[in-house]
Amino acid sequence: MNETLRLMQAHRSNRSYKTDPVSEQMLDQIVEAAYRGPTSVNSQQVSLVVVRDRAKRARIAEIAGGQPWIAQAPVFITVIVDFHKTRLGVEKAGETQVAHESLEGVVAGTLDAGIALGNLMTAARSLGLGIVPIGGIRRDPQAMIDLLQLPPLTFPVAGVCVGYMAEEVPQKPRMGISSFRHDERYDQEALPSLIAAYDETLMQYWQQIGRPDGVPWSMRVAEYYQKAYFSKVRPVAVKQGFLCDK
Amino acid sequence: MNETLRLMQAHRSNRSYKTDPVSEQMLDQIVEAAYRGPTSVNSQQVSLVVVRDRAKRARIAEIAGGQPWIAQAPVFITVIVDFHKTRLGVEKAGETQVAHESLEGVVAGTLDAGIALGNLMTAARSLGLGIVPIGGIRRDPQAMIDLLQLPPLTFPVAGVCVGYMAEEVPQKPRMGISSFRHDERYDQEALPSLIAAYDETLMQYWQQIGRPDGVPWSMRVAEYYQKAYFSKVRPVAVKQGFLCDK
Repeated sequence: MNETLRLMQAHRSNRSYKTDPVSEQMLDQIVEAAYRGPTSVNSQQVSLVVVRDRAKRARIAEIAGGQPWIAQAPVFITVIVDFHKTRLGVEKAGETQVAHESLEGVVAGTLDAGIALGNLMTAARSLGLGIVPIGGIRRDPQAMIDLLQLPPLTFPVAGVCVGYMAEEVPQKPRMGISSFRHDERYDQEALPSLIAAYDETLMQYWQQIGRPDGVPWSMRVAEYYQKAYFSKVRPVAVKQGFLCDK
Repeated sequence: MNETLRLMQAHRSNRSYKTDPVSEQMLDQIVEAAYRGPTSVNSQQVSLVVVRDRAKRARIAEIAGGQPWIAQAPVFITVIVDFHKTRLGVEKAGETQVAHESLEGVVAGTLDAGIALGNLMTAARSLGLGIVPIGGIRRDPQAMIDLLQLPPLTFPVAGVCVGYMAEEVPQKPRMGISSFRHDERYDQEALPSLIAAYDETLMQYWQQIGRPDGVPWSMRVAEYYQKAYFSKVRPVAVKQGFLCDK
């Protein structure tokens, strides 16, 4: 196994940071790894906003529902689905952009944003830094749009904290790999027993790391997924131009 | 710079493969890199279907609009947003899942799928293999659902060819990095000149690699984005349960 595989397979999210700054040189390398990732039809419909400003990070920590590590880690990078950039291109070619109104547009843009986010995380970890991806900015996407001065046809889909780790953390166990990898066709049969086994594995893990408030996976997912949580995503996306009606 | 950064920064898509098989051991390592990636609220709402079968790959090549490299490369991995798995968990906890009906659900699932897809690509490239991500399966998502026997509440968002490269290819230039990286706030001002410069850069690139049919970036994006291309994404997503009405 090589170092790149080892890094990705050892992925973990860190929520405790030193305040030491991340050098510009490191940050350039991390951003470049995301910049060189592929995008659907070479649209380059992803952008980043790098925030170092302490007050802005404190505000983002609030927006994300009170996540103190965003204020603590010296860098926060927001990943943006960016159909503003493509619209300028389409208009330069004398046409009118429609793709952002389709669900396909949202899916293609978000997939590309995911690739970029993954690359940011792997790149930062390859330099010995810690990271934690933050979906919680979607609690209040309009506040992020205002804070980062994002134009219409853009949407902040996620962010990531980057900084020196205050401590190493263990990797959270995953559900059995046959719940993830299927061969030739999707196989539903094993899922119920894999879920039951994982609920137990996760409870043992919570016990091991001294988290008596930990709950089984199925209970935790139910807590979030019994409702349309982050319910402002749809209205703000529509307001930004992502109508999702095509 | 380390090898992991170099790999991501040297990303390129390969469309010419040898027929030599990829070993199970390598495939296990590649899949494990995606398996260990993070997911929103630890939902693990991503699954893969690994296809080696020659006839199935030939069919996927057709579905994707006639992409011969899918039939040529020995492995094709489809990345699936999987709210079937989470529904089983939610129901085990005695609740009813609603999140898949929200746009937030689609965004969160697709973002996680993007992270997994990026990890698959970086992992394969770290082993000296070539890859090309395939969004074209979204031309006809129902055909992929039928072929891979995907249950309701799942959606095939993209795939990736994996195999030994028949030849190395150059990296396509990107638009100037200030179109991608913003600091502290989004800066719109430089975009028009960056797009104009990139249109020229790309034309020079097409000339260098002997592609007289190459067009400027803005013209290419206009060709796709003046319409809601892959227009079956929305109806098939809705049919699968992703109503996007919340």
